[in-house]
Amino acid sequence: MMLPELRETVSRLHAELVRYNLVAWTAGNVSGRAPGGELFVIKPSGVSYDELTPESMVVCDLDGNLVEGDYAPSSDTAAHAYTYRSMPEVNGVVHTHSTYASAWAARGEPIPCVLTAMADEFGGEIPVGPFALIGGDDIGKGIVATLSGHRSPAVLMQNHGVFSIGDSAKAAVKAAVMCEDVARTVHVARQLGEPLPIPQADIDRLYDRYQNVYGQRSPL
Amino acid sequence: MMLPELRETVSRLHAELVRYNLVAWTAGNVSGRAPGGELFVIKPSGVSYDELTPESMVVCDLDGNLVEGDYAPSSDTAAHAYTYRSMPEVNGVVHTHSTYASAWAARGEPIPCVLTAMADEFGGEIPVGPFALIGGDDIGKGIVATLSGHRSPAVLMQNHGVFSIGDSAKAAVKAAVMCEDVARTVHVARQLGEPLPIPQADIDRLYDRYQNVYGQRSPL
Amino acid sequence: MMLPELRETVSRLHAELVRYNLVAWTAGNVSGRAPGGELFVIKPSGVSYDELTPESMVVCDLDGNLVEGDYAPSSDTAAHAYTYRSMPEVNGVVHTHSTYASAWAARGEPIPCVLTAMADEFGGEIPVGPFALIGGDDIGKGIVATLSGHRSPAVLMQNHGVFSIGDSAKAAVKAAVMCEDVARTVHVARQLGEPLPIPQADIDRLYDRYQNVYGQRSPL
Amino acid sequence: MMLPELRETVSRLHAELVRYNLVAWTAGNVSGRAPGGELFVIKPSGVSYDELTPESMVVCDLDGNLVEGDYAPSSDTAAHAYTYRSMPEVNGVVHTHSTYASAWAARGEPIPCVLTAMADEFGGEIPVGPFALIGGDDIGKGIVATLSGHRSPAVLMQNHGVFSIGDSAKAAVKAAVMCEDVARTVHVARQLGEPLPIPQADIDRLYDRYQNVYGQRSPL
Repeated sequence: MMLPELRETVSRLHAELVRYNLVAWTAGNVSGRAPGGELFVIKPSGVSYDELTPESMVVCDLDGNLVEGDYAPSSDTAAHAYTYRSMPEVNGVVHTHSTYASAWAARGEPIPCVLTAMADEFGGEIPVGPFALIGGDDIGKGIVATLSGHRSPAVLMQNHGVFSIGDSAKAAVKAAVMCEDVARTVHVARQLGEPLPIPQADIDRLYDRYQNVYGQRSPL
Repeated sequence: MMLPELRETVSRLHAELVRYNLVAWTAGNVSGRAPGGELFVIKPSGVSYDELTPESMVVCDLDGNLVEGDYAPSSDTAAHAYTYRSMPEVNGVVHTHSTYASAWAARGEPIPCVLTAMADEFGGEIPVGPFALIGGDDIGKGIVATLSGHRSPAVLMQNHGVFSIGDSAKAAVKAAVMCEDVARTVHVARQLGEPLPIPQADIDRLYDRYQNVYGQRSPL
Repeated sequence: MMLPELRETVSRLHAELVRYNLVAWTAGNVSGRAPGGELFVIKPSGVSYDELTPESMVVCDLDGNLVEGDYAPSSDTAAHAYTYRSMPEVNGVVHTHSTYASAWAARGEPIPCVLTAMADEFGGEIPVGPFALIGGDDIGKGIVATLSGHRSPAVLMQNHGVFSIGDSAKAAVKAAVMCEDVARTVHVARQLGEPLPIPQADIDRLYDRYQNVYGQRSPL
Repeated sequence: MMLPELRETVSRLHAELVRYNLVAWTAGNVSGRAPGGELFVIKPSGVSYDELTPESMVVCDLDGNLVEGDYAPSSDTAAHAYTYRSMPEVNGVVHTHSTYASAWAARGEPIPCVLTAMADEFGGEIPVGPFALIGGDDIGKGIVATLSGHRSPAVLMQNHGVFSIGDSAKAAVKAAVMCEDVARTVHVARQLGEPLPIPQADIDRLYDRYQNVYGQRSPL
């Protein structure tokens, strides 16, 4: 079987989606690009998180074709594949319908950057991507058009949910977790008034520092 | 003992109601129709979810009469029985008082379809059924009148809670889980403004695709 | 050691407060009246829920004096004792600061009966008791004055939290769980409009039926 | 290895942040001052809560310099160090981005004291500290300026999150837990109207009693 280590990592990272309440039933998925860059490992379609194993993960090429696996790949595979094809620096993609982020997406409203943690992780607002139907490359195009050249590693796809990216599958999962966390906090803040803005120069300082100083200098 | 496999399935599915926080104390129940169509397995009344076992499940006929079991059947048995009698294609029924769905029900307000996941699963809005008292067939009639010919597998019974149906007990549980998930997300979206509508033609496309393409082609 | 069975029951029931997220740190307590009626078992003060054991429970008389135990009794003991002294039919008392019920209490606003489950359990609205300081019988008097002759087994003490009663410690815990459940659902319903009222005659029918028909005819 | 007992305590207390949902990913930290007063134990930077062990904790001096440890100290170490330098009575510091408290912080709005539990623990409102950038002593100065001479053991740092203090690491964790608990309850109360005020004299009585009477007379 190909790619045993990446299968293990991608399988295990789905447990983080469950732990942080980002998913209901089978409605979210993680993928990771394989070394070499031409393949990725992704969740099988319609399989519950409890039943995921490294062996049940499926391997696809960058056109989204099944290369190895006993199951059909996630119904969101085309969006993952398009993102990997278009953004060579991306090695992980996550999709969820997490509640608060999806609520901003349902209104088509970006999340304003009013928390220092949001400046750290997202470098500013979390943007909205277009309404797009499943079944072709429209979702992938919307993700790539919105995130290319943007600081944010997450996009709120209108009326749909979140796609996040990272230089590893784990980094993309972290972005999905933090996206829901700030989506919820800013929502709660807005329920009782207007959050105070953070000056753009301070957002820039926070983002720069966090990207360059935080953590243990190893891949997250 | 009759129907050991269905008893096991129905007993186990109650754990999903607990996992997704759809129930408090003993206030929710799952049933599944037996092969042959004339009997169904349902939760015993007033027994906690921790104590449910395949053996404690009870078997009823389609008039809601106890056929086998050491406990009284769920106080909602008449509504389940009426639904099975009236809708031969239904093989699973779930009832919950899940928070967000019940809040829409308390206002007597259907949940508008503003999420692609809702178009997938429900094919449009989730409808409201009439106010009905327990103790006869009024609740069952309200469920059947609302869901017959409707795409949605879930109905918000006014001032009461959710009933969901499916071609298996598991499918009905999935509908109950997804109903609360979209009830919460649309509620949260509406708290800070109006969600953007999804054009009916796109709802139709999403529903058609999801019903015919998604998953592993085996019963969910 | 006195009352080993009741110590076990009361100790174990605290886990239900944790399971249903009704308590933070050590801020909630359960008590149960002993057979004979002159003593009750209650949580020790300031001890975490993880560390509770049957042995760490304390026994008090109906004036709230410590009769047996290695710890000081809960700081709410006087309110429990006053309730047992004044309401001989009560065999269990629970106190929590559960979020949604305490929010209604902070506004001094009773929870209107707009859910059939609330008609079942509470027979109408959940009433508000007076603002009262700890340290004497004022809280106990407020509980008893509000609940005597009232259908509701729970009272929202203004700016404070919930006290619930029952004919057993378990029944009082159930009332505390259901109080928070309906407090949350009615809150959520009210956030986006006005819930539909349930006619008083229907509330009466539901309450009568639930008190006399539901469950397995054994103590809850 | 230095300070094995304090390493164990501080490591274990992080589990309380997880249990009470105060943190996402790695965004919160606990520290405890060592006997002697010149060193403190703190979380390593960017390490997940699951992977924390007594051995992975790091030891710093009161200028925030690493004294012992295999990892870089938390990126919030400077704020902890400044607090220990300036407030000799403080032996524990906690930092979180807990949702409801951070929402009040995003609006720069203190939490009004409308719950008796809040009078007990905080002795009045929970105050707001200044907006401050990470990377120097600005955050520490804001914490100390706000909390010095204030009854509240917690401060809402504007657009950022919560810092709490205590005479032990455990007491600081308790303050962080209770801060989020009252932040949530008062938020929920305010969503549907104005909470009733508690007269200042009653707040004073409650605070005095709780600080002097509650619990088992041993360190919390």
